[in-house]
Amino acid sequence: MIIDLGKRDLITIEDLSNREIEAVFRVADQMAENMIEQFGVCRGKVMASLFFEPSTRTRLSFETAMNRLGGSVISVTDIGNTSLAKGESIADMARVVGRYADIIVIRHPWEGAAKVVADYAEVPVINAGDGGHQHPSQTLLDLYTLKKKWKTLKGLNVALLGDLKYGRTVHSLVFALARFGALMNFRQSPGVEMPSYVLRKLREYGLVLRKYPNVNDSGSESGSTPFDVIYVSPPNQARLPMETTDIDIQIKVRRGGHDIEVMKKVDALYVTRRQKERFKVEDGSDEIDKIYPVVDKKLLQEEKYRKAIVMHPLPRVGELAYEMDADPRSMYFKQAGFGVPVRMALLSLLLGAKSADMPERRQLSFVEKKEFLTYEMDTGVRCQNEKCVSVQETEKRYIKPKFEIVSTTPLTLRCTYCEQETPPEYLPSLYIASSKWHQGLVENKRYYKADSFMLGRIRPENLIIFGSGEDARRQGFKLGKRAV
Amino acid sequence: MIIDLGKRDLITIEDLSNREIEAVFRVADQMAENMIEQFGVCRGKVMASLFFEPSTRTRLSFETAMNRLGGSVISVTDIGNTSLAKGESIADMARVVGRYADIIVIRHPWEGAAKVVADYAEVPVINAGDGGHQHPSQTLLDLYTLKKKWKTLKGLNVALLGDLKYGRTVHSLVFALARFGALMNFRQSPGVEMPSYVLRKLREYGLVLRKYPNVNDSGSESGSTPFDVIYVSPPNQARLPMETTDIDIQIKVRRGGHDIEVMKKVDALYVTRRQKERFKVEDGSDEIDKIYPVVDKKLLQEEKYRKAIVMHPLPRVGELAYEMDADPRSMYFKQAGFGVPVRMALLSLLLGAKSADMPERRQLSFVEKKEFLTYEMDTGVRCQNEKCVSVQETEKRYIKPKFEIVSTTPLTLRCTYCEQETPPEYLPSLYIASSKWHQGLVENKRYYKADSFMLGRIRPENLIIFGSGEDARRQGFKLGKRAV
Amino acid sequence: MIIDLGKRDLITIEDLSNREIEAVFRVADQMAENMIEQFGVCRGKVMASLFFEPSTRTRLSFETAMNRLGGSVISVTDIGNTSLAKGESIADMARVVGRYADIIVIRHPWEGAAKVVADYAEVPVINAGDGGHQHPSQTLLDLYTLKKKWKTLKGLNVALLGDLKYGRTVHSLVFALARFGALMNFRQSPGVEMPSYVLRKLREYGLVLRKYPNVNDSGSESGSTPFDVIYVSPPNQARLPMETTDIDIQIKVRRGGHDIEVMKKVDALYVTRRQKERFKVEDGSDEIDKIYPVVDKKLLQEEKYRKAIVMHPLPRVGELAYEMDADPRSMYFKQAGFGVPVRMALLSLLLGAKSADMPERRQLSFVEKKEFLTYEMDTGVRCQNEKCVSVQETEKRYIKPKFEIVSTTPLTLRCTYCEQETPPEYLPSLYIASSKWHQGLVENKRYYKADSFMLGRIRPENLIIFGSGEDARRQGFKLGKRAV
Repeated sequence: MIIDLGKRDLITIEDLSNREIEAVFRVADQMAENMIEQFGVCRGKVMASLFFEPSTRTRLSFETAMNRLGGSVISVTDIGNTSLAKGESIADMARVVGRYADIIVIRHPWEGAAKVVADYAEVPVINAGDGGHQHPSQTLLDLYTLKKKWKTLKGLNVALLGDLKYGRTVHSLVFALARFGALMNFRQSPGVEMPSYVLRKLREYGLVLRKYPNVNDSGSESGSTPFDVIYVSPPNQARLPMETTDIDIQIKVRRGGHDIEVMKKVDALYVTRRQKERFKVEDGSDEIDKIYPVVDKKLLQEEKYRKAIVMHPLPRVGELAYEMDADPRSMYFKQAGFGVPVRMALLSLLLGAKSADMPERRQLSFVEKKEFLTYEMDTGVRCQNEKCVSVQETEKRYIKPKFEIVSTTPLTLRCTYCEQETPPEYLPSLYIASSKWHQGLVENKRYYKADSFMLGRIRPENLIIFGSGEDARRQGFKLGKRAV
Repeated sequence: MIIDLGKRDLITIEDLSNREIEAVFRVADQMAENMIEQFGVCRGKVMASLFFEPSTRTRLSFETAMNRLGGSVISVTDIGNTSLAKGESIADMARVVGRYADIIVIRHPWEGAAKVVADYAEVPVINAGDGGHQHPSQTLLDLYTLKKKWKTLKGLNVALLGDLKYGRTVHSLVFALARFGALMNFRQSPGVEMPSYVLRKLREYGLVLRKYPNVNDSGSESGSTPFDVIYVSPPNQARLPMETTDIDIQIKVRRGGHDIEVMKKVDALYVTRRQKERFKVEDGSDEIDKIYPVVDKKLLQEEKYRKAIVMHPLPRVGELAYEMDADPRSMYFKQAGFGVPVRMALLSLLLGAKSADMPERRQLSFVEKKEFLTYEMDTGVRCQNEKCVSVQETEKRYIKPKFEIVSTTPLTLRCTYCEQETPPEYLPSLYIASSKWHQGLVENKRYYKADSFMLGRIRPENLIIFGSGEDARRQGFKLGKRAV
Repeated sequence: MIIDLGKRDLITIEDLSNREIEAVFRVADQMAENMIEQFGVCRGKVMASLFFEPSTRTRLSFETAMNRLGGSVISVTDIGNTSLAKGESIADMARVVGRYADIIVIRHPWEGAAKVVADYAEVPVINAGDGGHQHPSQTLLDLYTLKKKWKTLKGLNVALLGDLKYGRTVHSLVFALARFGALMNFRQSPGVEMPSYVLRKLREYGLVLRKYPNVNDSGSESGSTPFDVIYVSPPNQARLPMETTDIDIQIKVRRGGHDIEVMKKVDALYVTRRQKERFKVEDGSDEIDKIYPVVDKKLLQEEKYRKAIVMHPLPRVGELAYEMDADPRSMYFKQAGFGVPVRMALLSLLLGAKSADMPERRQLSFVEKKEFLTYEMDTGVRCQNEKCVSVQETEKRYIKPKFEIVSTTPLTLRCTYCEQETPPEYLPSLYIASSKWHQGLVENKRYYKADSFMLGRIRPENLIIFGSGEDARRQGFKLGKRAV
């Protein structure tokens, strides 16, 4: 079957099916094999490279990719030099640049910004990083690196360590690994743990998460600080193909004098630097620096890392020792180099200049994304993530809040822009009502506290959620007696 | 006849005749019709894109245009990163970059900077905005938008509102509209009125200006603040062609209880954002924000706006409501999109890669520019505009002041760089003499106050103007008795 | 013989032999002759243009050169926008960008930075200026300008004035001029004299340096401040070819009432601006401004300058009067324009897209570089130049100090990165030992003060140099009695 990605966007890694990801890899292989022949594939096409946050690697590899395809690049590399500095909205910029260029690549500090660009531009949009949210093209090249080394992603054991909290490359990567049937192991250093919304989403996918607190790692010096490990495995391991017979996981945690093995064999160790620029004061920056993990020869002398490839999205700071550069397991520079063929593949596919003929076979995803009801009424509920694009001064003039109702016990909303959830402490400010009960009857327009038992009485599809009691009253509702 | 613009500059919109502007539109139509075929028209040519002020739209559309023609781009996007930061003059930069590139596009905060670049570079130069002065390529696409919609510019009724003081796009546009026989209506909000030098120049063109103060507009909320309207019409309406029979202007101003209609029918409403970055402290910024006009559905429900297209050079801030985006009259995104074909046309014409075969017919300009005597002696008179390129520390070492004598009642000089006039308060510092009277006779070298009756006795072509009495004495003149 | 420079780096001008430099000129001539035909020579190739310091001229001319060859450019123009701002090392950046691009052009404020890039990137690297160290492509176009004018470089009289201390273009140029047999004359204004490490290196080449202090120049006003002149001539003037018969140097210095002519005839006057951005507080900036030389018509009216061409790497500030622009001797804008063909030649040669067939003849260098022992042990000695790449926080994690032992009377080490020498005041902190004496005998592991007579007893190839007594003791050495 022909995979044609023309006119598609890539905002989160979920925008591509497993087969489509494999189509990208197929084309990337062609690109890498004979790069010089690709010159002209995107002749006359223009890519807009809009980088509103520092970047070397991502921007330069996208621009190289477009150049190697024979296309042209227009670029913005500094927010201070653009009309955004004059107070222009992202939507306006998207509509204008979308009339100049044939494809837009955007990096922006606000989470959900790339989605807004895709919503308003008439051309394909690639998210090259939106705050701490996602960075899907990095995920593609991370997966490509794993695939090149191990031929398959199914059943691989991938250990992730470093900044799991603000590292957007990690957030994109784990969902993709899950879909391809890999097993994961999050080594969580204190203060930079995987965010709860990511863990919840992994559970929604049906994945099994097991947490082992206070693990002590022999190995590098920094290993002396205990950390928590979360082990993530596919919902039904029987569905894993035969070739991964060595997924024989024995949990081995040092506790009460006993050693339990956390992961018998690690196929890849994915390290990330601390995203200092995203840290908030309350994160206690200096404290974290001291206990941040370091990957060095000592850590990697453990038997389970004997064949593990070492990956890093780069740039590194101190978490990956220079002595590792000469180690044959180190793949991070090769991984960075894959950025060019993978992005050439991505650009040529989204521009419709290439398509891929893929074998007919069943879809390969090992997990299925759960669908939720969408809440779109503008009744005062707001995303509580201060970095979300939907709450910015210049953007809230036109962006209507939009959420998925991911839980009603307690009420939890996921912002469709930044994918972050409303925090529990927001719940007491919220009020609810039913759109059905009061039809035509003004006296039935009653509202209740969102954390009251009334939530269970309203069907999710009829739910109205108010940001405050005042929001409810402004719309003609009265406080219901039963629920105070 | 063949219109060949090869090697020409575009510094102000007056650099192109009406026929030449129509040639640009002719080529822009070809570009828009089949954009992909234009790749290669400027093969091997290099455009220097020098932006010393923030820009997204203009820079990216010029660069896109050059790329779509198959040419290359070198660019500077930040004054901090260039040798100008090392104290280099604009002239030196122009001479050097003019030896690298085949064409230069420049935006600069100093008024008249683009003219200096054109004076010193050996290649064509396009002014992409010089301070609050001009932005002629924007004017071309504004005119193109009007022409696309209404087929003609003759007799169109164009209302302009917003920041008429610092909005350079407006200053370029009004002269062009006048030349093509359009009628204009300036809705002047307090504090952002059209500068007097623009009004004077419109009068020089022979246009009729009528001012109606304190008009109240029904319509949008912001309309509650009264504003002045200046109505501008061609010198001889009889010269307007037949097809514009509906230019039946009835003036309707609310005054003394009577309503007078200011403009029966508006064909286009041209809105601009407040140019906050150009505002001076004494302009009283916050005050203006409160009364700044807002274009929204309410304003546009007036009958006269029924068919008006809404234009905006973008970026917008708050003066154009988001609700307008879905209104069929809104043209501003389409207008921005026209930037690419119009600039492709402009680049290919100035590079001599295209020419246009235009029908032979009489020139279409409805107004004629008045010619003035030029004053070029370096006798101490300086442009009083602190943003003029001619008074900058790095530039005054080589730029000689140069003025047009636009009036002698009282003496008023127009700087040939920034086109601003000497303000009345400068007059008392100036002194005059005649170059003719004293020929050979040292005792006749007398100077007089510039605001004295002696001004009338000296023929303009013999006039010497001193910046101060000291300047006069330094050149061997003595104070004349009669004129003290 | 075919000169093939494919895969070579250009970090200092010494990386190219005289014949190779002439090959660059040969190809530059072809480029200049028919520029439009070169489009396509580097088709499909990508140049990375990494500018971590302000630049217009150099960056734009390299980018123009690549564009005119039909290649593409990816560029970084601001350190604030890159991963270097995240604490990434230059080596990591080099390894990554070297996997994207086919050639790297780098400007960086740290001296020796380009060498590090070349050490780590797998593609050719061109140094476009590393701090105050070198700028060899500027030297190529300076030499090309001289050659175009005078047909030969042999025996030319070149006077250099301006900032000889921080002007990196001057430091690259003088070695090249020496190699081609030119004579030089450094007009040293107080505070901006030629650094001692440059003078030493010139002496190593066997050149004869004669200093005439307190010379008074007739000529320009600024000439009233006396300055020192250093006259540099080839080791064996007899080796100079016949055509330069007019190198008949009479020294004429005003001293004790007598006038001595310093240089009978100047063929080129090379002026540089004050490198204010490199000045340190202790340099006393304002003081220097007052006495900085100015090249103007008055200075150039001296007979010896009658045919001298005036060169300047630009940008100029105040040291080159605008009145010179119209003078036929002024070559600086033409010189800047040569940047494009010379850099086209350089890029196409290093990319292996061009080669040059040069006549077989003896090598033309009039001087020979002296070879020194290299000291590479990491025993605590550090380069004392605070702008050297090897001592920067992010770089010293992986760069091992490396020196040439250029003298042992007293001990003087030249850093292989920045080429600066250890200053005399560093000597008392250094200690020495011999690697030979103590072989196998722990009790013989003695260390001595580096400025003691023991230095003469140790053969340079056996020398161990410690950064401090503590460094020596840490490595198991004891203080030798005799040398305290």
